[in-house]
Amino acid sequence: MKVHSGSFSLRTGKRLEVLDVTGEVQRIVGESGVRSGLVTAWIDHTTAALAVNEHDTDLWQDILDAFTRLVPVRGDYRHNAKYGWAPGEQNAHAHILNCLVKPDVTVPLEGGRLRLGTWQSVLFIELDGPRSRSVHAQVVGE
Amino acid sequence: MKVHSGSFSLRTGKRLEVLDVTGEVQRIVGESGVRSGLVTAWIDHTTAALAVNEHDTDLWQDILDAFTRLVPVRGDYRHNAKYGWAPGEQNAHAHILNCLVKPDVTVPLEGGRLRLGTWQSVLFIELDGPRSRSVHAQVVGE
Amino acid sequence: MKVHSGSFSLRTGKRLEVLDVTGEVQRIVGESGVRSGLVTAWIDHTTAALAVNEHDTDLWQDILDAFTRLVPVRGDYRHNAKYGWAPGEQNAHAHILNCLVKPDVTVPLEGGRLRLGTWQSVLFIELDGPRSRSVHAQVVGE
Repeated sequence: MKVHSGSFSLRTGKRLEVLDVTGEVQRIVGESGVRSGLVTAWIDHTTAALAVNEHDTDLWQDILDAFTRLVPVRGDYRHNAKYGWAPGEQNAHAHILNCLVKPDVTVPLEGGRLRLGTWQSVLFIELDGPRSRSVHAQVVGE
Repeated sequence: MKVHSGSFSLRTGKRLEVLDVTGEVQRIVGESGVRSGLVTAWIDHTTAALAVNEHDTDLWQDILDAFTRLVPVRGDYRHNAKYGWAPGEQNAHAHILNCLVKPDVTVPLEGGRLRLGTWQSVLFIELDGPRSRSVHAQVVGE
Repeated sequence: MKVHSGSFSLRTGKRLEVLDVTGEVQRIVGESGVRSGLVTAWIDHTTAALAVNEHDTDLWQDILDAFTRLVPVRGDYRHNAKYGWAPGEQNAHAHILNCLVKPDVTVPLEGGRLRLGTWQSVLFIELDGPRSRSVHAQVVGE
């Protein structure tokens, strides 16, 4: 049994944005030499999230539209009011969406690869960009 | 330390539906011989999801009602418009709900069993059926 | 490779409430002696949830406000109607939110510590208190 980990950086360009990070996560799994086990993709951010879904930029816009319809960017938030002087802290919507979507996703590994279906990609969801971000992958297995 | 995995198939009968898959996930854990560790239940689908909650068919209807109230089946989705000619692709709601509920859940193992509370069952949530589906369980531990 | 687990109890004081449990989860990781691997924080409850976000009590109120705006405490729920005689079972909202937020979160371990960002805390989210609750942490690694 082995434990291996790696990270990579990315730069988001919009307030809300979806980026496909499947290749980078798979690269870290490949470096690990682990054939069978688990990989936890993880972000140490509170205003972004990780999901697994289709690589379709139209769908990504639907996802972001639905998210901000459910939890509006501009709302009557105590967190935003407290930091009213700080333009960078008007982001309660992003914190709330992170609690719903979460900063982690754990994917089985099979034959040294993420066990993804045909339509599955690992998606980084920026909720309060543009920012410099990083994604971590922790591999456990044999 | 051991890694063990298994899968099972299921057939959903409705557009939206909840199925209890606890027994099948526990069966794969039992086959593994692992007493203590983790099991990640995983689906490689983008229009269904996994959760852990009570086995109560009335509650399941409440869950599906709430989900489709939050993310309506019929909505103004780009994904659906793009695939307007494809009746099987009118499913942006299901993709969005998968991003919220997620395709994975990781449960501790204790004494060779999932560490579930009295009211907890592992639930497969169909969001765009009826379809043939499969669930995967990845066991890591000793 | 090692597997280690531990639990701790907590008492919530309100119907809806957020508690920071980072220290307790870190304590169990410390006891394990595991330096590198994964910890799955887990609750065996169906009417509470676990998330990872900022320790800011104003934000916590924003989170709870958003959750109950999306899934109201008082609603037309079959689960509540069926148990209309039971004041303790008027909690469909909590079950539904548990399906969205989930009872598990898996965090990478690095140098014997949870790999948390500056603003990340492990949060226990009570959705149907006040109650006695417990949180479990399952550590796998080396």
